[in-house]
Amino acid sequence: AIDPRRLWESLMETARMGGTPKGGICRLALSAADREVRDWLRDACTALGCTMTVDEVGNMFAFRPGRRNDLAPIAFGSHLDTQPTGGKFDGVLGVLAGLEVLRTLDEAGYDTNAPLLLVNWTNEEGARFAPAMLGSGVHAGVFDRAYADARQDRHGVCFGDAIDAIGYRGTAPAGSVRFGAMFELHIEQGPVLEAEGRTVGVVTGVQGMRWYEVSMTGREAHSGSTPMGLRADALLAAARLVTEVHAIALAYGPEAVGTVGSLEVTPNSPNVIPGAVRLTVDLRHPDDAVLGAMEARLQAAVRSLSPDAGLEVLSAKIWDSPAVRFDADCIAAVRSGAAAAGLPARDIISGAGHDAAYIARIAPTSMIFVPSAGGLSHNEAESTTATECAAGAQVLLNAILAYDRA
Amino acid sequence: AIDPRRLWESLMETARMGGTPKGGICRLALSAADREVRDWLRDACTALGCTMTVDEVGNMFAFRPGRRNDLAPIAFGSHLDTQPTGGKFDGVLGVLAGLEVLRTLDEAGYDTNAPLLLVNWTNEEGARFAPAMLGSGVHAGVFDRAYADARQDRHGVCFGDAIDAIGYRGTAPAGSVRFGAMFELHIEQGPVLEAEGRTVGVVTGVQGMRWYEVSMTGREAHSGSTPMGLRADALLAAARLVTEVHAIALAYGPEAVGTVGSLEVTPNSPNVIPGAVRLTVDLRHPDDAVLGAMEARLQAAVRSLSPDAGLEVLSAKIWDSPAVRFDADCIAAVRSGAAAAGLPARDIISGAGHDAAYIARIAPTSMIFVPSAGGLSHNEAESTTATECAAGAQVLLNAILAYDRA
Ligand SMILES: NC(=O)NCCC(=O)O
Ligand SMILES: NC(=O)NCCC(=O)O
Repeated sequence: AIDPRRLWESLMETARMGGTPKGGICRLALSAADREVRDWLRDACTALGCTMTVDEVGNMFAFRPGRRNDLAPIAFGSHLDTQPTGGKFDGVLGVLAGLEVLRTLDEAGYDTNAPLLLVNWTNEEGARFAPAMLGSGVHAGVFDRAYADARQDRHGVCFGDAIDAIGYRGTAPAGSVRFGAMFELHIEQGPVLEAEGRTVGVVTGVQGMRWYEVSMTGREAHSGSTPMGLRADALLAAARLVTEVHAIALAYGPEAVGTVGSLEVTPNSPNVIPGAVRLTVDLRHPDDAVLGAMEARLQAAVRSLSPDAGLEVLSAKIWDSPAVRFDADCIAAVRSGAAAAGLPARDIISGAGHDAAYIARIAPTSMIFVPSAGGLSHNEAESTTATECAAGAQVLLNAILAYDRA
Repeated sequence: AIDPRRLWESLMETARMGGTPKGGICRLALSAADREVRDWLRDACTALGCTMTVDEVGNMFAFRPGRRNDLAPIAFGSHLDTQPTGGKFDGVLGVLAGLEVLRTLDEAGYDTNAPLLLVNWTNEEGARFAPAMLGSGVHAGVFDRAYADARQDRHGVCFGDAIDAIGYRGTAPAGSVRFGAMFELHIEQGPVLEAEGRTVGVVTGVQGMRWYEVSMTGREAHSGSTPMGLRADALLAAARLVTEVHAIALAYGPEAVGTVGSLEVTPNSPNVIPGAVRLTVDLRHPDDAVLGAMEARLQAAVRSLSPDAGLEVLSAKIWDSPAVRFDADCIAAVRSGAAAAGLPARDIISGAGHDAAYIARIAPTSMIFVPSAGGLSHNEAESTTATECAAGAQVLLNAILAYDRA
């Protein structure tokens, strides 16, 4: 049995790395705070005698030998990067619960049949470098290393330079660290488990998600002396698109969601009609066909804005992660793991993207969810109790051992 | 007669201070580029034997004695700060044409009756520190020094610290440098003169203008796992307000304008529902009563957004500059100055705010406009020809001499 208190202490200790006054974490991928928590994880794993491998996009793999090293390792983990207004659990829980699994086995002197592999995937959030799930995506062959290196943050800093700067460019070629299956524990980030009073979500899949970058180019002009009819106002066009994204989500039923999360105005001065706006659109639905229809309506909206006097509106799809169904054996291992722990569970589809969604393309994979208070995530007030965190870690251990036995 | 070529050379020489690749100027108030052009102006004025006085908010006054130093000086000038995407003429023309007036008189050995005073007003644009016309506003007693010092830019830097940093905190108390009248030459920044083929606008007044800062506070949450009905999306509320500001301007006739020029999103991440937005609203109309009606409708829109689930929308009026009518004698001096130069002129009301609008509260004041190609301003492509600039400077000289004689 895992040690709830040790797990919680690890969560609280690392939460200081990038910790915010409001009790959250701002630990953007490849920032100084990310380096700090990576160093901490490396030291914690090597202290257990694990071998740490870092690949060329910064994914970290802690290897614990098994009794039969001819078997492919069983992987588990998640990510240590956060949103700018991130909470203390999103991603972090999956990695530190994985560490708790290793510590528990170590203490018990338990050797699994297959080797184990604790993973910290680079830049899962996509907050600093779009798209999300970049490290796991490179590992799974969805993106190549050159594509990853070229991603830029808002200030024009490249992923490749940022990884060199924090010293986490490893030598292992991307995708070279092999494993036979992966389990990822994560907070739900939605309201379902809490509303139903269940502690564990047996995640059977992930909905489809697509990101678009839209740029509107108008004409800067004086706010006081330029008649309304002579304007090409990029922000007015952007505002119309924001309301249209909302309308699209409402039009495709309760499972559809649509969000404009980032928007930047140039030159951003009170008395200048905005000459340019860049924004991102995030559309999601569990059914890829419905998502396709939502995308078509978005594109129609983009086209309908362009003919406005002097305005040019361009959109590019920057991310397309199709709906995923997880592996039946891995799902069964999680379900039995929850039952063994005597925890109330239900099947659930993830609304958020996860590294597991890409890893499912190359290995049997599934996920475990624990509740998020108020369904809140990507928010400094994100909250999951110590008991729920411990329950998740216990189910993770149970699932790994069940899979290892089978 | 002024020297068109010397004037143009001054314009082009100083345009390099903060010059942009697209041929504009980014010379925000109290920036390093602002210091550079201020030093240049100080040296140019002292080379003519003028005495330079700087007041405690950085307004610069170059004094040229007259034959009768018991008379109050005649002031003229404008501002050297620009928008982030500023052109080469907005403000700069008024200061450098004033310098050209001094140089012309010097060369001709002409002594006016009253002393002359060339002025560079601090932070006219309001782009870095809202509100606009801050230096002239302090001089005219509209704002006090403490208010000016406390203004903050987007990065939280105070006006007071910024002025100390560039070394332009003078010793003269604000408002202590007195003068008997002021003339300001400026580009029109609108389409009227060009459309009618006239070179000179005899500016009879300035329309009313008000700025508001609106903040929307919602709740950060995950874009993928938060159902549409559980969101408090600050950007969606902001988008509705942007389209409403546009509708308000259209509803109050062809003279009304309304603009959201700056807008900032927090945390600004593609997969986070925006938790907070701050934006500015700029409403203008030549008739203060109509402007009051526009404001009432804006406030109603702000109120109607608040009841949205969990959203708080607050607005504050941060600037209120009522409509201004300039002094009849100063207007007559400009009109006669244009006639003496044989230039086609027309009366015009300014759509933009100017330092002259505040100075009109304490001294007889008027303005001269020259055309802006395509009505374009606050844009790096802002364009006024060398001939038009020279025409404006000549009318400025003529108007000063006419006023001095009368
Ligand atoms: N779990 C999580 O927040 N992942 C980020 C990718 C997404 O936007 O869903
Ligand atoms: N002339 C000018 O652009 N002034 C800035 C103040 C305003 O917004 O009108």
